[in-house]
Amino acid sequence: MKFGQPSDVHTIGNDIQELNLLNFDLYGRDFLLTTDKSLVDLEAVLRLADILRMLWRANVSTRVFQTGLAIAQFRDKSTRTRFSFASASNLLGLALQELDETKTQISHGETVRETSTMISFLSEAIGIRDDMFIGRGHTYMREVGQALDESFQAGVIGHRPAIINLQCDIDHPTQSMSDLLHLARHFGGLHNLKGKKIAMTWAYSPSYGKPLSVPQGIITLMSRFGMDVSLAYPEGYDLLDGTVAKAKQYAQETGGQFRIMNSMEEAFENADVVYPKSWAPYRVMKRRTELLEAGQGIEDLEKECLANNAKFKNWECDAQKMKLTRNGEALYMHCLPADITGVSCRQGEVSEDVFEKYRMATYMEARYKPYVIAAMMMMARFRDPVALVDHLFRNRSRRAGRFEA
Amino acid sequence: MKFGQPSDVHTIGNDIQELNLLNFDLYGRDFLLTTDKSLVDLEAVLRLADILRMLWRANVSTRVFQTGLAIAQFRDKSTRTRFSFASASNLLGLALQELDETKTQISHGETVRETSTMISFLSEAIGIRDDMFIGRGHTYMREVGQALDESFQAGVIGHRPAIINLQCDIDHPTQSMSDLLHLARHFGGLHNLKGKKIAMTWAYSPSYGKPLSVPQGIITLMSRFGMDVSLAYPEGYDLLDGTVAKAKQYAQETGGQFRIMNSMEEAFENADVVYPKSWAPYRVMKRRTELLEAGQGIEDLEKECLANNAKFKNWECDAQKMKLTRNGEALYMHCLPADITGVSCRQGEVSEDVFEKYRMATYMEARYKPYVIAAMMMMARFRDPVALVDHLFRNRSRRAGRFEA
Amino acid sequence: MKFGQPSDVHTIGNDIQELNLLNFDLYGRDFLLTTDKSLVDLEAVLRLADILRMLWRANVSTRVFQTGLAIAQFRDKSTRTRFSFASASNLLGLALQELDETKTQISHGETVRETSTMISFLSEAIGIRDDMFIGRGHTYMREVGQALDESFQAGVIGHRPAIINLQCDIDHPTQSMSDLLHLARHFGGLHNLKGKKIAMTWAYSPSYGKPLSVPQGIITLMSRFGMDVSLAYPEGYDLLDGTVAKAKQYAQETGGQFRIMNSMEEAFENADVVYPKSWAPYRVMKRRTELLEAGQGIEDLEKECLANNAKFKNWECDAQKMKLTRNGEALYMHCLPADITGVSCRQGEVSEDVFEKYRMATYMEARYKPYVIAAMMMMARFRDPVALVDHLFRNRSRRAGRFEA
Repeated sequence: MKFGQPSDVHTIGNDIQELNLLNFDLYGRDFLLTTDKSLVDLEAVLRLADILRMLWRANVSTRVFQTGLAIAQFRDKSTRTRFSFASASNLLGLALQELDETKTQISHGETVRETSTMISFLSEAIGIRDDMFIGRGHTYMREVGQALDESFQAGVIGHRPAIINLQCDIDHPTQSMSDLLHLARHFGGLHNLKGKKIAMTWAYSPSYGKPLSVPQGIITLMSRFGMDVSLAYPEGYDLLDGTVAKAKQYAQETGGQFRIMNSMEEAFENADVVYPKSWAPYRVMKRRTELLEAGQGIEDLEKECLANNAKFKNWECDAQKMKLTRNGEALYMHCLPADITGVSCRQGEVSEDVFEKYRMATYMEARYKPYVIAAMMMMARFRDPVALVDHLFRNRSRRAGRFEA
Repeated sequence: MKFGQPSDVHTIGNDIQELNLLNFDLYGRDFLLTTDKSLVDLEAVLRLADILRMLWRANVSTRVFQTGLAIAQFRDKSTRTRFSFASASNLLGLALQELDETKTQISHGETVRETSTMISFLSEAIGIRDDMFIGRGHTYMREVGQALDESFQAGVIGHRPAIINLQCDIDHPTQSMSDLLHLARHFGGLHNLKGKKIAMTWAYSPSYGKPLSVPQGIITLMSRFGMDVSLAYPEGYDLLDGTVAKAKQYAQETGGQFRIMNSMEEAFENADVVYPKSWAPYRVMKRRTELLEAGQGIEDLEKECLANNAKFKNWECDAQKMKLTRNGEALYMHCLPADITGVSCRQGEVSEDVFEKYRMATYMEARYKPYVIAAMMMMARFRDPVALVDHLFRNRSRRAGRFEA
Repeated sequence: MKFGQPSDVHTIGNDIQELNLLNFDLYGRDFLLTTDKSLVDLEAVLRLADILRMLWRANVSTRVFQTGLAIAQFRDKSTRTRFSFASASNLLGLALQELDETKTQISHGETVRETSTMISFLSEAIGIRDDMFIGRGHTYMREVGQALDESFQAGVIGHRPAIINLQCDIDHPTQSMSDLLHLARHFGGLHNLKGKKIAMTWAYSPSYGKPLSVPQGIITLMSRFGMDVSLAYPEGYDLLDGTVAKAKQYAQETGGQFRIMNSMEEAFENADVVYPKSWAPYRVMKRRTELLEAGQGIEDLEKECLANNAKFKNWECDAQKMKLTRNGEALYMHCLPADITGVSCRQGEVSEDVFEKYRMATYMEARYKPYVIAAMMMMARFRDPVALVDHLFRNRSRRAGRFEA
């Protein structure tokens, strides 16, 4: 399948054939970090996501569950990802149920095991967002996974729901995978990403405390496809060592590049793609955890952090910097919402004119997420997802309009 | 179809035939104000609503979506309309997803365009309630519509969800249309409304700040069917000029009447229908917007408003006033909840004995709303909704009980 | 059907046959108190619950509603029961809609009648939890029932939704019925419960105000199957007189036993099942209602109550007490969450080692609840639920995977 071609019903059959050739191993496995998955796994998820999207466009039902729940556990505010998860669950036929924890608490061992089991009796998937505390989110998700394994093996729950990471302290796979699908379509195929330069850069923001998982997700994913990844940030805004190490390793393995620099301009130089986005320094996020547990000092930390950010107001993606990119026409990306200078804040990550030029492109970038999440769920819950999506295609049951029952 | 007859399955076939004769134009259009729609449009929605209701009664499935979301965006408290929208979405097969905006804010241009698109990828309909600020609600809904048009034309979203107005500063179409269906059934047909007198009057309430959209919705809708509309309120409780002008115009066009008076008794004189309901003076609602933006003065405004209301405690619908109506047996209407003297408040819009006599009638009035909303959605999202409802009828798939899949 | 046998698809056919032999009378009746139902009614619900569970295990769809709502009205915090009700609704095909009352208020007559009707137009079931006020919860549920009867008879609503008690001040039927099913499976059949001893005992907890409905539900249900019910609590921690009287009566009728004692050890002596769980003294709960209405004095009551609890810290289920049970291997039960000494609190209802030994068993105990609730709903809403579940079994429509539409 040529990702970049316009889609229509006739190509879906071919796309399913091509997906069938991939030797992926996703059944019964949670989707927590892209670094846990093979390249084939990742490509399979993207292909299935795009097939589901085309089926939707062709008004073909993608319902694979008559009943069943998808649980949403958000330990952080979210509108976009919440909607994406709700949409993904719904397009497969699952009903959304929120696990509402009124107090953001660090769960004790007992509570995690019990709560995870109590919500799983009739659930097919659990989407968790836990990104506010360095060292906690990913750990929590693994703990949930272990609790579910134990209950499943003991026969308490009849099946083992799949856990989907909706953003943790390390990675944001639903975001990075959607971004990757967007790039694949933009450049006409995953294979065409090889050698393309992406500038994953820090950018100024008047708010502090933004998670590191988006830049970490981008560098650990794009480096796996032979891209020339340039990570740029002011001194002190390092990402987690482990993610940087992985990006270096992947770049080596795939003949790509991975470079770190302290200049936004240098990263933008001849870039095919730019992704300027703010994040808090890792050390600040760690201290934030400690202060929150102590119950004091947060406001001082915030002031300190904002003051530090303010030294780098020139780290703004403006028309001048965009001129440095390849033909001055690099694809601008953002997970949204962006801090837009003069629009959503006085000084921000991107200038108004640049954002306006790429606004529709950022909406295009966002549209894949429900399908990526649905593909992750489908791959994890069905032994033969290709046969299943092929059945959906051949059955051509209408999603909207007349149908039997 | 004779609206007033008891319904049964056999008449549904005829009702669908009669609906098929109407030349309506609702596909791809939002339902924001009844004044935007032709008389044929309005009649078609009512007929379809009643058909859906009878199909429900006959245990015939009205599911027309296998998957898909209906988004609820409530910028004001609501239980009844929230339930009606949830019921309407569900009877068509859509899953409800709430857009939760924790802060009631006046949205900036960027946020509206982005948020509207982000929630629309897999959505079929968006129900919005925004009635607290004069000049804002309807404007906001149009802004959302424009954002969706733009994203749809750019190919970002595959289809353009329909926006349903669940109450704005100008109109409350789901309420007025349900009221109209109720009247049509009560008097044996829309054509029988011609010449009937309806008293849309202000009534005393111990609370302030009730929206103007219900009386405005009633006068701009009932005047289109040749009714004799008497709008009564104490001096100073005017409705929006634009709505009054439209009511006058419609009355002229249809051979009805539209009169404004400052006496509840005069309105009740020989009325066939009475609709006594409190509202805040337009000028007060406007100043409220300004004071809320300034962040102060609201409490003083409230005191002033309640003090003014208190001058008109005799504007209560009691047995004595009901005796003035035609045969003393006018149909009493209220969108609920009513302020009932001695029951829900010390002094209110209606006396306990009058309300108790008509309590079941007000429940009857309320029962049409889910079907009216569902009809609005169906008409907006399907090119041939008549063929579709005919298919539902002929297929006779059970809603509850045995069915295939 | 032998409850204790491993289940598989082949036995489901037999199980349905056996259910068909029972002469139950559940159609059109709310499920508020187990004491309202006959023994045959209770057995029928349990059998249907287990059939639904096995159908789920066999990946057979249990969807009996194409559309329709299940309303959840929680006047108290809840995660487990909320999830159980959501799961139960979903497995039958209903969409969950919450009735959110922001203020816990004692509803006035008018509001109950109106609200109950407004939420019922397209609803099949209403789950209510109202357990915080002695004398209120059950009364409220009956009030709702009367309001629905009235509206149904007046033709305002087309059908009468079933009310399911999700815990009131008197009983917690979804819990006790799930517990009973758990015991039936554990001991190889309902008939095998006769003569088995169950110790329903109070236990120490560092929190106060826990409802009495669990112990009341247990003693009024287990006594109906000829069990030897030992109710133990420190002086002053009596349960409601009416529930105690019923337990005595049932024990007499079924040849079982019902004894009250003030010693945990005496209750545990030779017990086959132990159920140590804290509850607040009835008199305290009554005074709490009065103080809440007065708006003061709650904190003093709390201190007094905690101080009184603290006299009985030795009422803890530990290894030593478990040794007193039959073969030292009684089945430990808890509705969860338990107050576990050294894990969730410093001193609690059960020691860490005992709880850990039975942790999986308590999860097993919890897994029946969604199916019990679903069975209650199905029995109340369908005239011939046996024919319906037989149709589901024969149709063998897949719940997950390929299906027609």
